[in-house]
Amino acid sequence: MTLWGGIEGGGNKFVCAVGTGLGNIVSEAIFDTLTPEVTIGQIVNFFTEQQQHLGPLKGIGIGSFGPIDLHPNSPTFGSITTSPKLDWAQTDLAGMIKNSLHVPVAIDTDVNAAAIAENKWGAAKGLDTFIYLTVGTGIGGGAMINGELVHGLLHPEMGHIMVPHDFAKDPFTGNCEFHHNCLEGLASGPAIEKRWGGKADELSNDHPAWSLEAEYLALGVVNYIYTISPQRIIMGGGVMRRTQLFPLICQNVLDMLNGYIQLPEIVKSINDYVVPPALGSKAGVLGAIALARRMF
Amino acid sequence: MTLWGGIEGGGNKFVCAVGTGLGNIVSEAIFDTLTPEVTIGQIVNFFTEQQQHLGPLKGIGIGSFGPIDLHPNSPTFGSITTSPKLDWAQTDLAGMIKNSLHVPVAIDTDVNAAAIAENKWGAAKGLDTFIYLTVGTGIGGGAMINGELVHGLLHPEMGHIMVPHDFAKDPFTGNCEFHHNCLEGLASGPAIEKRWGGKADELSNDHPAWSLEAEYLALGVVNYIYTISPQRIIMGGGVMRRTQLFPLICQNVLDMLNGYIQLPEIVKSINDYVVPPALGSKAGVLGAIALARRMF
Repeated sequence: MTLWGGIEGGGNKFVCAVGTGLGNIVSEAIFDTLTPEVTIGQIVNFFTEQQQHLGPLKGIGIGSFGPIDLHPNSPTFGSITTSPKLDWAQTDLAGMIKNSLHVPVAIDTDVNAAAIAENKWGAAKGLDTFIYLTVGTGIGGGAMINGELVHGLLHPEMGHIMVPHDFAKDPFTGNCEFHHNCLEGLASGPAIEKRWGGKADELSNDHPAWSLEAEYLALGVVNYIYTISPQRIIMGGGVMRRTQLFPLICQNVLDMLNGYIQLPEIVKSINDYVVPPALGSKAGVLGAIALARRMF
Repeated sequence: MTLWGGIEGGGNKFVCAVGTGLGNIVSEAIFDTLTPEVTIGQIVNFFTEQQQHLGPLKGIGIGSFGPIDLHPNSPTFGSITTSPKLDWAQTDLAGMIKNSLHVPVAIDTDVNAAAIAENKWGAAKGLDTFIYLTVGTGIGGGAMINGELVHGLLHPEMGHIMVPHDFAKDPFTGNCEFHHNCLEGLASGPAIEKRWGGKADELSNDHPAWSLEAEYLALGVVNYIYTISPQRIIMGGGVMRRTQLFPLICQNVLDMLNGYIQLPEIVKSINDYVVPPALGSKAGVLGAIALARRMF
């Protein structure tokens, strides 16, 4: 059996797996996101040991936080560039993995990887134009359009769009260090905690945090609908595990569209249009494996 | 010589042309946008006469205001759907042209048509991922991503994104009949006129209207950059003929990005990143001809 490696690089942890895809993960390991030297060292050790036990991997895919240089002809292809995680800025993530393990390596954003996994095995099966959004320590979006992942000049950084912010209603100034009150600065997990002064996990379901959160996320969803016209929007990440957000977001989206878009896929079945990932928290690492498989 | 027809359908006028593309337009006619019966009748008469003089057209392309049903398998394919121009809602524009002239007809949005023309002959030559934005009686955007036009579930309606609006600084409530203060409601030509109480054409270059306009348009540009990561953004339409807007928009975009995006294509050459259409006001009708040519 041909085996593949997958690496999901996140702000808090790196998830590594060996297998072929959904339903067939042979081994898995999770490492805290420390310095690149320490964490990448742990990852390399994991895959080295796995290859000793299981035989050589045909390829490794990486879905990582970014921004990442994804231009194949660039001298810094596969590097994390200007990340707010300063230890990781200018880290040649793909190159370090490839040079240590001598295995072909593919890399894309964590959210593009999750998008591929959901397209192959999950909530975006049969679709060619959709968005995978994650709402957690940050907000990020991956997109497939006409069957191809979107990169463009860099890759989408959807969480950083500017949205209306009523300071009278919500005096919190936002916590994005680049843009203050962009969507991520208003609606990421850390923004919720800073605004309300408590762990998001510990806020009760009827805390006013959630209706405000749903409004901001709906503004993002509406802007993505108008900009890309996706067939579906998948919303994952730690914050979206508060599933009461989904009906709140859906109602806000309909209110904000206000009849301008009359497609039945949206107005008649919004709960099937804005959905959680079918693969749950596995979308990232499964997508990384799918990225590896796409090399061949 | 194989000849093609192009129809650019706008809120104020329909531009019709016969030819092969840039530099070879054999004949042209412009009709006011009245009722569908009257205007489509004039268009059909024009092309009928042209075919009598020049021989049969191989195909006709239409780039039209919308929303338009662009799903090939839909029973209402080629119809204008829920347009704010009420006379035109539910008008089978493509069907009426095709059935009257018995010529193959292609249809897309006016902005997707302009995007194709700029890609083939203008400011987007050699690019595969870019946006064509028009700022005039409305605000609309077409997009090519990875070399393909974006349609998705419907097609982009980029002008209707929600952007920050500081009521203390700008008390105008916006004039979009669906969303009030979406980007179109704040920054279209009619919004400028309603806010300042005078024809936009008659406002002097140093009128405060333009710095405010540039701020709103820059918010749009920034949101499109973060959502799609285009290689270039082309901005046309009547309002953008006030070319002093370009440097103002560019400076605002850089200020708003605030160093998060450090791509030299943006930060070192923003004036080559946000640009006017190379084809000027001809982009739409040339794109319509290009749409016709793409059928074969």
